[in-house]
Amino acid sequence: MSENWHRDAAAVVTLTFDVDAETPILAQGRAYARHATTMSHQAYGPEVGLPRILDMLDEFGVPATFFVPGWVAEHRPGLAESIVERGHEVAHHSYSHRPPTSMTPEEERADFERALAVFAAQGIEIVGHRAALWEAGWQTAALVAEHGLRYDSSLMGDDRPYLVDTDAGRIVELPVHWSLDDWEQYAFLPAPQVGSVIESPWKALELWRAELDGMRRYRCLFNLCLHPFLSGRPGRAVALRRLIEYALECGDVRFARCRDVAAAAQADPDLPVRRPAPPPVDPDVYPS
Amino acid sequence: MSENWHRDAAAVVTLTFDVDAETPILAQGRAYARHATTMSHQAYGPEVGLPRILDMLDEFGVPATFFVPGWVAEHRPGLAESIVERGHEVAHHSYSHRPPTSMTPEEERADFERALAVFAAQGIEIVGHRAALWEAGWQTAALVAEHGLRYDSSLMGDDRPYLVDTDAGRIVELPVHWSLDDWEQYAFLPAPQVGSVIESPWKALELWRAELDGMRRYRCLFNLCLHPFLSGRPGRAVALRRLIEYALECGDVRFARCRDVAAAAQADPDLPVRRPAPPPVDPDVYPS
Amino acid sequence: MSENWHRDAAAVVTLTFDVDAETPILAQGRAYARHATTMSHQAYGPEVGLPRILDMLDEFGVPATFFVPGWVAEHRPGLAESIVERGHEVAHHSYSHRPPTSMTPEEERADFERALAVFAAQGIEIVGHRAALWEAGWQTAALVAEHGLRYDSSLMGDDRPYLVDTDAGRIVELPVHWSLDDWEQYAFLPAPQVGSVIESPWKALELWRAELDGMRRYRCLFNLCLHPFLSGRPGRAVALRRLIEYALECGDVRFARCRDVAAAAQADPDLPVRRPAPPPVDPDVYPS
Amino acid sequence: MSENWHRDAAAVVTLTFDVDAETPILAQGRAYARHATTMSHQAYGPEVGLPRILDMLDEFGVPATFFVPGWVAEHRPGLAESIVERGHEVAHHSYSHRPPTSMTPEEERADFERALAVFAAQGIEIVGHRAALWEAGWQTAALVAEHGLRYDSSLMGDDRPYLVDTDAGRIVELPVHWSLDDWEQYAFLPAPQVGSVIESPWKALELWRAELDGMRRYRCLFNLCLHPFLSGRPGRAVALRRLIEYALECGDVRFARCRDVAAAAQADPDLPVRRPAPPPVDPDVYPS
Repeated sequence: MSENWHRDAAAVVTLTFDVDAETPILAQGRAYARHATTMSHQAYGPEVGLPRILDMLDEFGVPATFFVPGWVAEHRPGLAESIVERGHEVAHHSYSHRPPTSMTPEEERADFERALAVFAAQGIEIVGHRAALWEAGWQTAALVAEHGLRYDSSLMGDDRPYLVDTDAGRIVELPVHWSLDDWEQYAFLPAPQVGSVIESPWKALELWRAELDGMRRYRCLFNLCLHPFLSGRPGRAVALRRLIEYALECGDVRFARCRDVAAAAQADPDLPVRRPAPPPVDPDVYPS
Repeated sequence: MSENWHRDAAAVVTLTFDVDAETPILAQGRAYARHATTMSHQAYGPEVGLPRILDMLDEFGVPATFFVPGWVAEHRPGLAESIVERGHEVAHHSYSHRPPTSMTPEEERADFERALAVFAAQGIEIVGHRAALWEAGWQTAALVAEHGLRYDSSLMGDDRPYLVDTDAGRIVELPVHWSLDDWEQYAFLPAPQVGSVIESPWKALELWRAELDGMRRYRCLFNLCLHPFLSGRPGRAVALRRLIEYALECGDVRFARCRDVAAAAQADPDLPVRRPAPPPVDPDVYPS
Repeated sequence: MSENWHRDAAAVVTLTFDVDAETPILAQGRAYARHATTMSHQAYGPEVGLPRILDMLDEFGVPATFFVPGWVAEHRPGLAESIVERGHEVAHHSYSHRPPTSMTPEEERADFERALAVFAAQGIEIVGHRAALWEAGWQTAALVAEHGLRYDSSLMGDDRPYLVDTDAGRIVELPVHWSLDDWEQYAFLPAPQVGSVIESPWKALELWRAELDGMRRYRCLFNLCLHPFLSGRPGRAVALRRLIEYALECGDVRFARCRDVAAAAQADPDLPVRRPAPPPVDPDVYPS
Repeated sequence: MSENWHRDAAAVVTLTFDVDAETPILAQGRAYARHATTMSHQAYGPEVGLPRILDMLDEFGVPATFFVPGWVAEHRPGLAESIVERGHEVAHHSYSHRPPTSMTPEEERADFERALAVFAAQGIEIVGHRAALWEAGWQTAALVAEHGLRYDSSLMGDDRPYLVDTDAGRIVELPVHWSLDDWEQYAFLPAPQVGSVIESPWKALELWRAELDGMRRYRCLFNLCLHPFLSGRPGRAVALRRLIEYALECGDVRFARCRDVAAAAQADPDLPVRRPAPPPVDPDVYPS
C-alpha cells in the first residue's frame, strides 16, 4: 500500500484562493479606504469572482482551499461557511493581511489569534495557515504549531511538502512560489502602485502549464495561488478552466485540498524535515 | 419582449475613447508643460489618432463613446461637436483630469461643474461621467446623480452594469477594469515616468479577445477604454480593426454607446443595486 | 511627376542608430564612470555593435542615419567619418546627451553648439538633429533652424513628416515614437536602474512588423531608433536582419536617410505645418 | 591545427550557475535575514535547485561552471567539493556578494581575499572570478590578475572572449550580458523589491535560442548565467533541458567550462586586447 504524500500521482494540484478582498490594500495604508474605485476592485473578489469560481469548481468536481483573512470573514458573515458547504476548505490567512515581517512578535500573535477567534465563532474548523503576502517570520511556524494547526503554506524551501520542526511541535509545510501566483501576472493598481504590464490569460496559462509539466516530471506539489478579484475576471476564469481541463486530461494529476495533502504528508515516512532558522549575519560582512 | 440590459446578446461592447490630450500629464505637474516632446506625444491624440479612429468607426458602422475632459473641449473648440456629428456620444471626463482622490470634495465639485459648463456652452448633451484616472471617491457617484446624469463609468465592482444608490438618487454604473485599458499595454514616457516594456499590438489583441470570449460566456459588458494618443498609432489601429472584425464575426456581440447601455440597464428589473461606502477601518487593525 | 514626401511608397523606413556609447549613463550621474561593467556595456556599442550593423547594412545595400553625440565623436576620432564613408548620414545628437528639458536655455545652446563644432572640426556635414532622450524643449526647434539645419527628429506630434515653424525659420520634423525604439524592449541596467523584463528579439520584431504594416496602410514614416549597444547584440542583429528582409519583400517600402526624407518633405506642398508652443497652464487648474 | 578560441565551433556554450543562496539579499540589507519566506526562497537554490541541475548535467554529459560566493561555500561545507566531484568547475564569486562598485578598494580586496581563503581551506582550485551583481570596478581585473587567476567573467565589452591588460598582468575576459541571465526573466521578491512580471520558461527559452542562433552566426561565446533558486524550479529546469537539447542538435556548438575556454583564449593569437579604464568625465559637461 502506497504511503507517499502524492499517492503515486505524478503531481498533486492544490488550487488555492486567497480571498483577500480589501485587506491587502488597507494593510498598505488605511487612507486607501477613501479610494472608491480601488475598494470596488477589491470587493469584486468576494462578490463576483468567488461565486463564479465556486460554480466552476462544482462543474469540474475538484476541491480547493480558500485562505481567508479573519477581517474578511468577520465583515462578510456567511462567506466562509458558504465555501465549506460546497466541500472546500477554509484556512487561516491572518486577521488583517499585515505581513508578519512588518509586525512585532506580540502584534503577530494578536493578529493570528484574532483570526482564529473569528473562525471559531463562525464554527469554521481551521487546520492550516498562510502568512499574509507570504511574508512569514521565523516565529510564524511555531505559532501555527502552538495553536494545533497541521500545516503552513507560506515558505519556499522546496517544491514538495516538507516537515518543519518548531519549539512548539512539528507541522507540514506546503510550499508556495511567486511563479504560481496570479498577482505577478494580472495585478495592476495606480494607488497603491501595483504591477506594470498586465499579462494575457493565455500567457499565464502557458506559464502554469509549463510549471505543471515540470512538476509532473519531478513529482511536486503544484500549489497554485489565485485571487478572486484577479482570476475571477471572465477571460482569466476561462483560462483557469483550460488549466483544470488540461490537468484532468493528463491522467496522472491529483486534485486535493491542502488539509488532505498535509495529512498524507504526515503519513509519509520519507518526507524531509527542516528547522527554519535565520542565517547568521555578521555586521562586518553585511554592514548595512 | 426582452428587457434585459444586454438585449440577449452574449456580450455588449462599448468602445470608449478617453480623449485626454495633455491633461493627464499636466495633472502630474504643470512643469511638464515645458516638455515639448511629451506635449507633442499627447497632442497626437486629438490631432492624428482621433480622426483616424473616427474614420475607422465610420467604416465599420459601429458607435462609440468619447470621454473628454472639459479642459480639452475648451482648448480645442469644435472637437466635441465633431464627435457627436459622427453619431457618437461625448461624455464627461472631469475638467482637469485631476483624480477625485487627490482633491477635496469642494475641489472635486468645482472641477466637475466646470466641465459641465464647458459642454453646456458648446451645446453638447452629457448623460454620463468617468472619473479621471478611474480614481473615483465615495462622493463621486452622488455628484453624478445630483447633476442629473444617467450613468457613471469609473468603478470595478462587477463586470456587468449595476445600479448605484446615492443620497442624490440612483444611477447606472458601467464598470471598467485595468485589463480593458490600453494604458497598461502601450503607455511609455520617461518624464513623468510611465510604463516599462511596450507591448505588441498583437499581445493586446490576444488579451482583449480572451476577455471578450470570457465575457461572451458570462454575459458581461466589454467596456474597452482606449486613448487616441496610444491606440491611434498605426499598428495599434490595425489591431483594433481586427478586434472589431472579430467581435462582428462572433454574431452574438452588440456594439452600443454607453448612454444606450445605461438606458437599457435602467429598464432591466433584475439589475443588482449597490450602495458604495468605504469599508470600516479600525486604526488598531490598520495603524498606518 | 510625384512630389509627395514618400515618393508613392506605402511607407518610408528610416533606420536610425543612436550611437550614444557612455553618454546617456554619464548624463544620469558622472559617478557611474566608476562602474566598469556598465561602461563596458556602453562601449560595446561603438566597438562591437556598430561594425556589425555597418556590415549588415552593406550586405542589404540600405542606407541609414546615425545620431552621434558630440562627446562620442570627439572621444572616438574617426568614428563619424567611418560612418559617412559607408554612405550613411551622421546627424547631431547633442554634445553630452543631457536632455534639453534638464538644462537652461543657455546650457542647451552651449551644448548644441559644442557638438556642431566637433563635427565641423571633423569635416562631417550635419543637416539634422535629434534631442537627447527625445526630450526636446520648446526652444529646441528654433535652435535647429537658427543653425541652418534642415530637420529635427525628436517630436511625436504625427507619424508622418511635418513642418515646424519657429522664430528662426521653418524646419522639417521627422517624428519618433517610443514604440519604435529598442530601449523599451531590450535595455536593462542595475545602476542606474534601467528596464525590467528583457524582451525576446522575436517579440520586438513582432511589434515593429505590426507598426510597419500599420504604417504601410496609413502611409507613414517608419522612423526606427536603435542603439548599437542594444541591437548590435547577436540575436537582436538577426531579428533586425529579418525586419529588413521583410520590409524589402513588401515591395512598397522605401529605405532612406533622414536627410533625404527631409528634402523630399520640403518639396511636398501638402505637408502640414505646426508651430509648437506650450499649452497654457492655469495654476488654479493645475496647482502643483 | 586550429588554435582559435572556439576550436572551430560556431558558438561555445558556457553554462554558468551563480550559487548565491542568501547572499544577494543580505547584501541589500542584513535586516532581510528576518524574512523567513525570502530566506527559504534563496535556500531553495543550494538545497533543491542545485542537485536537480547537477543530475541534469550528468544526464546530458555537459560540463558547467559554478560561481560560488565564499560565504556560501563556508556556510555550506561540502557544497563546492560536491560540484567539483561531478566534473564541473567552481569559481570565485566574491565572499559576500556585495558589488565592488559599493565598496572601497580596501573593502573589495578584503572581500576578494577572504573568498580565496575559504576555497583554499576547502582544497578547491580557483582560476576564475565573476564580480557580484556583475558590478565590477576598474580595479577588479587587476585583483584577478594579481592573485594569479586566469580569467574574469563580469564585463560586457564584447560577445567573444578578449584579453584584459592590467598593471598586475593580463587575464582573459569571458563577457556576460543581461540578456543571458535568468534574473531579468524570473526573479520576483516583494522585499527587497525585485522584478515585476514573471516570464514563462518558454519565453526565456525563445530569447536564449534567439541569442544562441545569433551567436552561431557571429561565432560568439554563449555565456549563460543561471541561478539555482530560479532556474532550478521544475518548469524552468525543463526549459533548460530543451535549450541544451537544442544546442546539442545544432551540431556546431561546443559546451565547455569557463576555465577551458579561458585556456583556449590564451592560446589564440588573434584575440583582441583591451585595457579597461574609466571614461574621462569633465564636471562642466556632467555637472551632477
